[in-house]
Amino acid sequence: MKIRHLLADLHGCTAPLLDDVDALLGLLRAAAANVGAHEYGRTTARYVPHGVTAVLILAESHMIVSTWPEHRLALVEILLCNEDMDPEEAFGAIREGLVPDHVELHQTVRGIHP
Amino acid sequence: MKIRHLLADLHGCTAPLLDDVDALLGLLRAAAANVGAHEYGRTTARYVPHGVTAVLILAESHMIVSTWPEHRLALVEILLCNEDMDPEEAFGAIREGLVPDHVELHQTVRGIHP
Repeated sequence: MKIRHLLADLHGCTAPLLDDVDALLGLLRAAAANVGAHEYGRTTARYVPHGVTAVLILAESHMIVSTWPEHRLALVEILLCNEDMDPEEAFGAIREGLVPDHVELHQTVRGIHP
Repeated sequence: MKIRHLLADLHGCTAPLLDDVDALLGLLRAAAANVGAHEYGRTTARYVPHGVTAVLILAESHMIVSTWPEHRLALVEILLCNEDMDPEEAFGAIREGLVPDHVELHQTVRGIHP
């Protein structure tokens, strides 16, 4: 089994979405749609005074975005256990939505067994 | 701001917990307690025929465990935005609970700003 994992740090995000729970969940849904992944559950949390965590649980694992609007920062995690689905392709929707000026991207493969 | 991030692949888990939603959520809570982190929300999903995703949202970010009982595999992610909290210390409770025979551990720092 091959599990593909993407971590992304999005710096300098200018979009007001960083503090918008529904919009962030919408970006995760768009990311899932990009690769044909299926929503299986969700949860969100809004921090006081600012910041959001949005989690989309998928039939093919999960996607999460955490934001720190005061630092114009979003951290994204995409885990997909269907090896035909490319996390970077999914990530495109989030990147477009949050308009960062700099992205650090790490994609790895996890959980391989002989 | 320093955000500490731990990823762990737990192979060869023998514990029956891998398919037990409440027990996995309990391990995440024990992990949070290990470092004094505060629960802020949660969600879980149980896959058919097996496998679980458990998410604990914290005041200090989040912890997730995803399991594939058929592969005796669990993947853990711990993200803590309180730099005094050590994700590896938190992870100890999960490792003890799942009894893996091999663990791949990656700890990184994310989202640093000058």
